[in-house]
Amino acid sequence: MSIDQTTAARATGFSDFVGRHVGPEAGDLEHMLAVVGQPSLDAMSDRAIPGVIRSEAPLAIEAAASESAVIEELRALADRNGVLTSLIGLGYYGTVTPPVVRRNVLENPAWYTAYTPYQPEISQGRLEALLNFQTVVTDLTGLDVAGSSLLDESTAAAEAMSLMRRSSKAAADGVVLVDSQVFPQTIAVMRTRAAAIELPLVVTDLRGVTTAEGLAAAAGGKPVVGVIVQYPDASGHVADWAPLATAAHAAGALVTACADLLALTLLTAPAEWGADIAVGSAQRFGVPMGFGGPHAGYMSVHKGLERSMPGRLVGVSIDAEGHQAYRLALQTREQHIRREKATSNICTAQVLLAVMASMYAVWHGPRGLTAIARRVNAQTAALREALVAGGLAVETEAFFDTLTVAVPGRAEAVVAGFAARGLNLRLVDGDHVSLSLDETTTTATLETVLDGFGVSATLPAEGASGIPQGLERSSDFLTHPVFHAHHSETAMLRYLRKLADRDFALDRGMIPLGSCTMKLNATTEMEAVTWPEFAGLHPFAPAEQTEGIRALIDDLAGWLCEITGYDAVSLQPNAGSQGEFAGLLAIHAYHEARGEGHRRVCLIPASAHGTNAASAVMAGLKVVVVKTAEDGTVDMDDLRAKVDANRDNLAAIMVTYPSTHGVYEDTISELCELVHDAGGQVYVDGANLNALVGLAQPGKFGADVSHLNLHKTFCIPHGGGGPGVGPVAVRAHLAPHLPNHPLAPEAGPESGVGPVSAAPYGSASILPISWAYVRLMGGEGLRHATQMAVLGANYIAARLREHYPVLYSGHDGLVAHECILDLRGITAETGVTVDDVAKRLIDYGFHAPTMSFPVAGTLMVEPTESENLYELDRFCDAMIAIREEIEQVRRGEIAVADSMLRHAPHTALNIAGDWDHPYDRTAAAFPVGVTPGDKYWPPVSRIDGAYGDRHLVCSCPPPEAFEG
Amino acid sequence: MSIDQTTAARATGFSDFVGRHVGPEAGDLEHMLAVVGQPSLDAMSDRAIPGVIRSEAPLAIEAAASESAVIEELRALADRNGVLTSLIGLGYYGTVTPPVVRRNVLENPAWYTAYTPYQPEISQGRLEALLNFQTVVTDLTGLDVAGSSLLDESTAAAEAMSLMRRSSKAAADGVVLVDSQVFPQTIAVMRTRAAAIELPLVVTDLRGVTTAEGLAAAAGGKPVVGVIVQYPDASGHVADWAPLATAAHAAGALVTACADLLALTLLTAPAEWGADIAVGSAQRFGVPMGFGGPHAGYMSVHKGLERSMPGRLVGVSIDAEGHQAYRLALQTREQHIRREKATSNICTAQVLLAVMASMYAVWHGPRGLTAIARRVNAQTAALREALVAGGLAVETEAFFDTLTVAVPGRAEAVVAGFAARGLNLRLVDGDHVSLSLDETTTTATLETVLDGFGVSATLPAEGASGIPQGLERSSDFLTHPVFHAHHSETAMLRYLRKLADRDFALDRGMIPLGSCTMKLNATTEMEAVTWPEFAGLHPFAPAEQTEGIRALIDDLAGWLCEITGYDAVSLQPNAGSQGEFAGLLAIHAYHEARGEGHRRVCLIPASAHGTNAASAVMAGLKVVVVKTAEDGTVDMDDLRAKVDANRDNLAAIMVTYPSTHGVYEDTISELCELVHDAGGQVYVDGANLNALVGLAQPGKFGADVSHLNLHKTFCIPHGGGGPGVGPVAVRAHLAPHLPNHPLAPEAGPESGVGPVSAAPYGSASILPISWAYVRLMGGEGLRHATQMAVLGANYIAARLREHYPVLYSGHDGLVAHECILDLRGITAETGVTVDDVAKRLIDYGFHAPTMSFPVAGTLMVEPTESENLYELDRFCDAMIAIREEIEQVRRGEIAVADSMLRHAPHTALNIAGDWDHPYDRTAAAFPVGVTPGDKYWPPVSRIDGAYGDRHLVCSCPPPEAFEG
Repeated sequence: MSIDQTTAARATGFSDFVGRHVGPEAGDLEHMLAVVGQPSLDAMSDRAIPGVIRSEAPLAIEAAASESAVIEELRALADRNGVLTSLIGLGYYGTVTPPVVRRNVLENPAWYTAYTPYQPEISQGRLEALLNFQTVVTDLTGLDVAGSSLLDESTAAAEAMSLMRRSSKAAADGVVLVDSQVFPQTIAVMRTRAAAIELPLVVTDLRGVTTAEGLAAAAGGKPVVGVIVQYPDASGHVADWAPLATAAHAAGALVTACADLLALTLLTAPAEWGADIAVGSAQRFGVPMGFGGPHAGYMSVHKGLERSMPGRLVGVSIDAEGHQAYRLALQTREQHIRREKATSNICTAQVLLAVMASMYAVWHGPRGLTAIARRVNAQTAALREALVAGGLAVETEAFFDTLTVAVPGRAEAVVAGFAARGLNLRLVDGDHVSLSLDETTTTATLETVLDGFGVSATLPAEGASGIPQGLERSSDFLTHPVFHAHHSETAMLRYLRKLADRDFALDRGMIPLGSCTMKLNATTEMEAVTWPEFAGLHPFAPAEQTEGIRALIDDLAGWLCEITGYDAVSLQPNAGSQGEFAGLLAIHAYHEARGEGHRRVCLIPASAHGTNAASAVMAGLKVVVVKTAEDGTVDMDDLRAKVDANRDNLAAIMVTYPSTHGVYEDTISELCELVHDAGGQVYVDGANLNALVGLAQPGKFGADVSHLNLHKTFCIPHGGGGPGVGPVAVRAHLAPHLPNHPLAPEAGPESGVGPVSAAPYGSASILPISWAYVRLMGGEGLRHATQMAVLGANYIAARLREHYPVLYSGHDGLVAHECILDLRGITAETGVTVDDVAKRLIDYGFHAPTMSFPVAGTLMVEPTESENLYELDRFCDAMIAIREEIEQVRRGEIAVADSMLRHAPHTALNIAGDWDHPYDRTAAAFPVGVTPGDKYWPPVSRIDGAYGDRHLVCSCPPPEAFEG
Repeated sequence: MSIDQTTAARATGFSDFVGRHVGPEAGDLEHMLAVVGQPSLDAMSDRAIPGVIRSEAPLAIEAAASESAVIEELRALADRNGVLTSLIGLGYYGTVTPPVVRRNVLENPAWYTAYTPYQPEISQGRLEALLNFQTVVTDLTGLDVAGSSLLDESTAAAEAMSLMRRSSKAAADGVVLVDSQVFPQTIAVMRTRAAAIELPLVVTDLRGVTTAEGLAAAAGGKPVVGVIVQYPDASGHVADWAPLATAAHAAGALVTACADLLALTLLTAPAEWGADIAVGSAQRFGVPMGFGGPHAGYMSVHKGLERSMPGRLVGVSIDAEGHQAYRLALQTREQHIRREKATSNICTAQVLLAVMASMYAVWHGPRGLTAIARRVNAQTAALREALVAGGLAVETEAFFDTLTVAVPGRAEAVVAGFAARGLNLRLVDGDHVSLSLDETTTTATLETVLDGFGVSATLPAEGASGIPQGLERSSDFLTHPVFHAHHSETAMLRYLRKLADRDFALDRGMIPLGSCTMKLNATTEMEAVTWPEFAGLHPFAPAEQTEGIRALIDDLAGWLCEITGYDAVSLQPNAGSQGEFAGLLAIHAYHEARGEGHRRVCLIPASAHGTNAASAVMAGLKVVVVKTAEDGTVDMDDLRAKVDANRDNLAAIMVTYPSTHGVYEDTISELCELVHDAGGQVYVDGANLNALVGLAQPGKFGADVSHLNLHKTFCIPHGGGGPGVGPVAVRAHLAPHLPNHPLAPEAGPESGVGPVSAAPYGSASILPISWAYVRLMGGEGLRHATQMAVLGANYIAARLREHYPVLYSGHDGLVAHECILDLRGITAETGVTVDDVAKRLIDYGFHAPTMSFPVAGTLMVEPTESENLYELDRFCDAMIAIREEIEQVRRGEIAVADSMLRHAPHTALNIAGDWDHPYDRTAAAFPVGVTPGDKYWPPVSRIDGAYGDRHLVCSCPPPEAFEG
């Protein structure tokens, strides 16, 4: 017997991490292969994947010995970070995550393994939490409607910029004025975004602009579509922006306030001084800084703008019984982005973080939040008083939490001196530093600050308010009972449990969503996320304090290159959409650098993800659609024609591989050649990378750039609809055009296209998840996972093919890692729709597959490698049983309108109530595979989406609304 | 505004931890006081508590500034521990907790806040997990029946010792033979226990005893009731005990094997060589060493002994519909210990740890466990080979994981040298060291060992088995499907979620159990439990490596003295029962030291907890029962009479204060005086300490000794029925007689009574929970919590009094922290029983109160301070609604046999099925206060306990058993 741990574990066939990650056990493999009709895993992938693109060499990534070994390695990386007390500010602050929220949300699979709430009947818990979030934002900003989160403050501001241009009454070629004290990273992101769509941005000092003339002067005489200010601003100053807003409105411009939610508990709400839009970050509501993210960005708007607002919006509607129920409102705006109407490409929210922030508000309530804010403000006032008494030149007079101090010529030395005392200040310029206090600031910290400045004055025990008269908040907020009911830990624990219990996540069963890759989010992968050494870092902390996390990022980037065959990776994009945008920017910058900036045509197959087109528009490209052939592949004749027609202006083609139809297309190499020959670049959407890892490398088979989705292929949990990470990977010639960041030169190439996210490394604090996954699996394990994912999809296809047509397949009838079940014939014959099947699956204890994408009237199923044979069979059995239910309709034994299918999902209330259905209660509630005692009950019946859109309610309804 | 965090928080009335721990908010207080009819909290407690016992001075315990500050302090303590790699062995080994189990069991409130499964309908999840545990133990030991856990290996061995005496066919005054290579702490605990009951214990070398003659010789010619051996033994040797067992059986003795579960995967099962009983620890099945505990001890027995086995036994029975369901079997043995039949006082199991250990077995399955064992054994063999090659004298030839090495005269130096290399060896004696390998042992560790011994021989890559021929295991184990179905992390996660969802714990709603104090187990309190600096310590690690945890223990002991008014505390007892035993031992030792060892009478009021009497019997005392007066108080006349009658032999009185009737008795001072005057000691059971903290101190009002329950008053979660900690607190004159420990002189007084638990500090790893609680609350907060607990109980009493008679109360009708609702009249009039009400409460979403203790036909309700007004009212509303349901029966509108009360609890399957009840489904399933979408559904209907006892099945039934 070997004494080596790994070898011994491997020998058992299931004891190492690969065996834990992959669902089917060694003994199941033979059975599955037999059903699929393939002699071996390798034979299967050799048949499925075109030989020309198959990788020959194994991935050169070593696997760690064990999960414990990976934790040890992560600990060693963590130990290389130095977590100082941050006073840097700029939108990132120390905060106390309520422990009950950390443990029961952030560390609870019921919350973090949930999917985006597209199936609202099984998402009522997180939808309520998001509605709470929206209520927090609308109440604090004073605006009418808030979305359920955006990616970060800076991208939210950039979205506001576009929204103002679209919605302003001023000429569309007008400028957007940005106050120079907007956070620098926000200005930089706006510049990146504005440049791509040729929107003129004027960054200037707006503090003195109070009249129409002043506004016109600031705009250089051009029309103004929008104005963006920070409240309080980067220097800490709390300005009265009312006169500016009045002037802007008079000019037909809209006004956006980038506002701090904690400060708003004490400050006049932006809506009350005239802001039309508010954006910002909810980070300091209990979400650790995490070296930059993820956090929930927010946006709220006044009535009339809500239908133009990017991102997701939770609204109240009713279910089939007329009971109140939550759902995503105006959903068609977003989920199936219409190419021609794209205004934003954001498809990922920051649900998990928005939930945390909302629970922070629920936990503290308005009184608690105000108390925290008052203390921070009092501490700032006391500090200011002591500094002034000590002879320091404090430039900030009206303030919430931030003071700018003039230290002529000594700023760098001061910052270094403070770092030696364990504090990070913000280096504003050579002559100024600033410091921001927060919930975690102690008197000891304040005393260290005084000491650091050489001030011997003592700190006063009380601090007057730094809020200027006239800007003190007088309006109420968070008056809804939910913000008053859960202030004890017991009550909060139960509230979190209650909400989690309403939802269906991976911890209950399979979520077989095509293209979304809902695989295992292993505990070991999640561990490091909450370690203070990662969670406590400010994104702009000095590089010497962030060695460990940056080494981790370098490792991960290197492994992603090895996996994809590309040469360089940027991990800055904090969602797939941002990765797409960054990739297209790189293509455009590349063309421009070669004097071919006129190349602006982007070919996109009809079957593409909606975001592709939206990203192209955002990147300033012109979309030309390529048809789909009969067999689901890209119509090569049409492609040739379109390439020819746009030869001189061809910028790129964006394709997904394997295609969104779940097939490895043989024509991919030819497609790449065609486009390259015409001078275009090939963008391969990495959504389906889970079908390629270890088997083929886009960077080697002809693509120039891809974005990946770490929240799909690389195990970052979906969090109920975010966070995500969307790295962009490129071949060497595009590497100089990757994103960079003005506040962190080490985060990207000097020649880069600017930042696409607020933080230099995007959502850095969740990168340890993917790092751990790759390290645990190693190259061999990753390849095995891919093969098992493909085997799982083919197993389902094989078992279900005689019951539901499988729409597309390749050689030997093989699909890739997902398959499309075609219900169109069934629907035509019986009236049973994909919705009926999807909702009926809830009764069987499953999350529905992807509905009607990429082909209307179909279901796309992606089991992933993590589902074991038991669950795959349970799903197939359920689908087959549902097919028999459909047969009863087809045979005329039951009308579709009276069927279990149409009345699904069935709630407990339905079952207990009056019953006039032609089927019996037990058949409805406990179909095959459901153990009555372990049944998941959806809390509401089928939701009427249209009702909610007609009667838009997007903040917490009064409790009475739920009565009856 | 103050800049100080604590003051600012306090000012809001709810933002500091006290406000989080205590349920009712400041605004609710007035309302509650009004209902109770008291002007203020202080006025209430002044009225309720006799003036003579009330404390005047506030508790001198400072509160920490915040939860974060407490975590920082705990980190500082943790940093003072040095966690070396332990090779000490002796029943404590390195192990890898499967991360999915740690996160989803040990760190999941759904598991750790659950109560003991006395209400089996809402405990099916943990009962299944415990049945798995029992199956693991029976399969591996080869015996027929296993209990669902005991406190630790040493107390389990002591219980086996008593069991053998009770059940042996040999003369009852016979000896118990103990092999000298049984773990030393086990021998010590057995000695403590044997001495108290005057059981002669002979510790001798049994390795060579193979015949009747040899056995008789070893016993010095006395009859032998039992033999106890270790397998493998402390030196590491794997002996063939079959000949000894044969000889013992021939002599009418029983045989107990202390066996290592991991080793048993490779070794002949103890039953197969003749053991009648097996005991041991499941620690190395995934439960960290934690400086000694808590872990699950185990016991299994052959058929015929199961009804004499101590502790809890989970069995299979059927519910009202005839479906299989789990329950505690033979429950009357244990829950209501009959004073006259007490054989063991164990009322706490180690459920949470048994669940973890069982899940470790589910996770690895038989193949995985065997692979781990084989690797450990191969490593040991390889190490042995290299050591021998290097010239070392390895004395162990047949081994599993442990080797004893002779190092004449150098043992201490060798141990010190290894510590410097980061390894702890066991110092056997001046000439020997031993080392034990485990699941976490790496090749690097083995190389360090060689290096430490100065051996240059290289380690062979393969190791032969060290198991002697003839002792290799040939029988199967863990063949049940549950050990084969959950090997992927996804599958395990879902299994854990499914089981947790069947159960009702504090995270769903109130558990108003009288005398059990189910209060908040705050996340911050739980944090440190899983930190490696606490979890990774071996209990016999050198004192210089355990400074931090011992400082924490000293703090906690000091605070408990301050709170109780006693002078010294021992934290060694790992359950209340052990604390009681230790307290009584101290009393006896005190009398003996004064030459009054004949004082053996222990007075116990009729209303006492059953354990009191059982503990007295275990401590060698004679129980004399004191009557209860009409009003529920101790009958003082009877007391006087019993004191007089036993004046010369009076050892002690054991009372609970406030009484188990939930009242502060005025006579407590007089009672103490009476007993003291007669030369007796006063033992106050600390079960109800939650009604005293900050208000009165037993150590000051006349008591000499108490045990406390950290799992009641001091926030250690109940874990579904354990762990617990039962410190014993004494006045100065008893302090020399507290427990101590042979392997840790610093853990108790030299003159102590010996150990009562295996580890020097008992369940040390959960002491940070109570430490954090006290530190977070401070003296003022603790007092407030007590007052709020009393207020809550009185609020319930006041609201329910007109619906259900409140059995006992004191001045102004005030109860203490719990109240007894008397249903006897209702039952007599209507036939509705306490069972009916308890089970109907499940339909309303509550755990039942304590049933029929201390008075049959009553319900005892203890809300604790952590329940907020919402939940208190929800409970009262439910009880009032149930009263109205009872009224319908009383009025003859419905027969009790047909009523919702009798058919409760209602499962979803009931509701969906055929319906022939006179009430409707909705009324049954969704009574007042239940939101249909958030309903907790019990997985089974009312369980027929007697059926299960008649058909005893105590290991996993085949899956088919659940069909139909």
